[in-house]
Amino acid sequence: MKEIKRPTLFINKAIAKANIKAMAQKAKINNLSFEPHFKTHQSKEVGEWFREEGVTAITVSSVAMAIYFAANGWENITIAFPVNVLELEEIEQLASKVKLTLLVQDTLVVKKLNTLTSKVYLFIEVDAGYHRSGININSKQEIQKIIKTIKTTKHRFKGFYYHAGNSYNARSTKDVLALYADMSSKLAFLKQEFNDYNPHIATGDTPCCSVVDVFEGIDSIHPGNFVYYDYTQMAIGACTINQVAIYVSCPVVATYLDRNEWVIYGGGVHLSKESLITEIGKIAGLVGSLDENGDFSAFPDVYVKSLSQEHGTIASSLPLPSSINVGDVVYILPIHSCMTVDCMPNAFTTTGALISKMKK
Amino acid sequence: MKEIKRPTLFINKAIAKANIKAMAQKAKINNLSFEPHFKTHQSKEVGEWFREEGVTAITVSSVAMAIYFAANGWENITIAFPVNVLELEEIEQLASKVKLTLLVQDTLVVKKLNTLTSKVYLFIEVDAGYHRSGININSKQEIQKIIKTIKTTKHRFKGFYYHAGNSYNARSTKDVLALYADMSSKLAFLKQEFNDYNPHIATGDTPCCSVVDVFEGIDSIHPGNFVYYDYTQMAIGACTINQVAIYVSCPVVATYLDRNEWVIYGGGVHLSKESLITEIGKIAGLVGSLDENGDFSAFPDVYVKSLSQEHGTIASSLPLPSSINVGDVVYILPIHSCMTVDCMPNAFTTTGALISKMKK
Repeated sequence: MKEIKRPTLFINKAIAKANIKAMAQKAKINNLSFEPHFKTHQSKEVGEWFREEGVTAITVSSVAMAIYFAANGWENITIAFPVNVLELEEIEQLASKVKLTLLVQDTLVVKKLNTLTSKVYLFIEVDAGYHRSGININSKQEIQKIIKTIKTTKHRFKGFYYHAGNSYNARSTKDVLALYADMSSKLAFLKQEFNDYNPHIATGDTPCCSVVDVFEGIDSIHPGNFVYYDYTQMAIGACTINQVAIYVSCPVVATYLDRNEWVIYGGGVHLSKESLITEIGKIAGLVGSLDENGDFSAFPDVYVKSLSQEHGTIASSLPLPSSINVGDVVYILPIHSCMTVDCMPNAFTTTGALISKMKK
Repeated sequence: MKEIKRPTLFINKAIAKANIKAMAQKAKINNLSFEPHFKTHQSKEVGEWFREEGVTAITVSSVAMAIYFAANGWENITIAFPVNVLELEEIEQLASKVKLTLLVQDTLVVKKLNTLTSKVYLFIEVDAGYHRSGININSKQEIQKIIKTIKTTKHRFKGFYYHAGNSYNARSTKDVLALYADMSSKLAFLKQEFNDYNPHIATGDTPCCSVVDVFEGIDSIHPGNFVYYDYTQMAIGACTINQVAIYVSCPVVATYLDRNEWVIYGGGVHLSKESLITEIGKIAGLVGSLDENGDFSAFPDVYVKSLSQEHGTIASSLPLPSSINVGDVVYILPIHSCMTVDCMPNAFTTTGALISKMKK
């Protein structure tokens, strides 16, 4: 293990690789194109772990991220974010180098994209219940209008993209399956409705991709979080604690026996301010140790109670482990791996290899 | 104004400088040493704005931050965080170069610090009600023991430090004044109790420092957030909207007339996942425009409803301004300026000058 002096992000490579392999196999069995979302790790090294499983097409959440991965040899990239027309210049450069797929949801943006000299592929982003971005899946006339507008441009209509982010509100695999059933029937209906255009159907949030075994009417999946998972995915039922590959090492800087709490060097700037409401209240992470193999063991019922900028407060309803003293290091299993990765400048494998990250 | 293509952090320098001047004057009138916390801005350029107001002693929240500001000419630094004994080597290097003040709360850490070759100044961090870090202010015997241990070392006992972070729960100036009255009476009692050691009393969260006019029994104040303020400080009553100096520009990437919402390019990776419960529910920022002078105008009743990694959802109980379309840029006044600054790689003044930040 690497020497630890301050909050440091660790990734268990063996677990992450197993997560990638399992998802790649699930995609293969279901005859789905596996186009993983790279916003979770933002790392060229982790990208290579996907390449080893045969991945050639990827998904990102910003033009900047597309530029980073294009520079690292990825040639088939979907930017799963509504086109930001202020970045047409950067999109032009990208489109001249890689097979680029963008998400649109109105005709004006499609027309603006026609000023590009290179051809891009366009998904119409639809909203089948999450209500964040995308055009309402029932707005058939509007969708028809966008397809027709695309057909007047140099670009290719590829199909429909839906991100079911509302699956993060699920708290059981039953909830996830119900959400998937609803979503997939809506998408199947959409596919049938626009059958003349042979639309590709793209979806795949981590909860659905982890819980569902048989996918029908879907052409590609685009999950990201599953590479590391996190406490939220455990709460959803999308993974077990043994599938979580991400931990932040935090030195203990104070202990308070009277109120059964510790303070760690590790705050919102390391873990993000993400939290989750659980049956014991709002928590910001689980707490445990990491053995020499990089395997995490949670201390029973010990959690991150609150985070300020650099401080974390650790609490438990049981007496906190007496083996831990000021100067020891504990490991936090985070609430949301994507946000934690984004907070930290880089990461290390549990065997000490650097995992770099795109610069902000 | 700088050309904006993606989420960018802007600081109104005139407002920030006025905030610094006002706090410096308040400290001067009250005969307090003004030792501002630099964790909010993390910037050498902003540090210079403080120097112009006569500031020579500063406060930081990590050893890394102390190293950064020491390298930028600051020679009197308090690290307002429980000593992380895993960083003794870095502390040694710092202590050989600058007047370094550290916070301790137990005798074991004091003994470990005695292995340093350079002398440091030690505050005993006390807890007068916030219950995050610090020794309970009523633990007189324990405090006496720590002072006596410090006296056996090469280091100097400086006094007591208290951060009243619970002032962030206040929702009126009356709440803040009541909290200050309680805290200052406890600190005055502590000062009297340990009068033989002539202890310096250090405190000064932004709400108390902004709301209180007459300080008694306090020797130094250490606020940080006031340089930029934010929506939380407005909700507390610590500032008005005209004193807020920080905004994040965000391109509008989708509009939804049917549900009266916009989606912006601007998410938790730009603004942090900080939110605040208000009478209209949980919000993640105010929304408005910035004029050519860098002055912010809030759109009436328009707020950030939710944030995911890169998306922000904007909502209102009134019809959203019809003048804003896809491709326009709106400005977000954030919930918590310290966290937003930490998320962003750097900032710009509203006249376009770069404000760099320490590297993570």
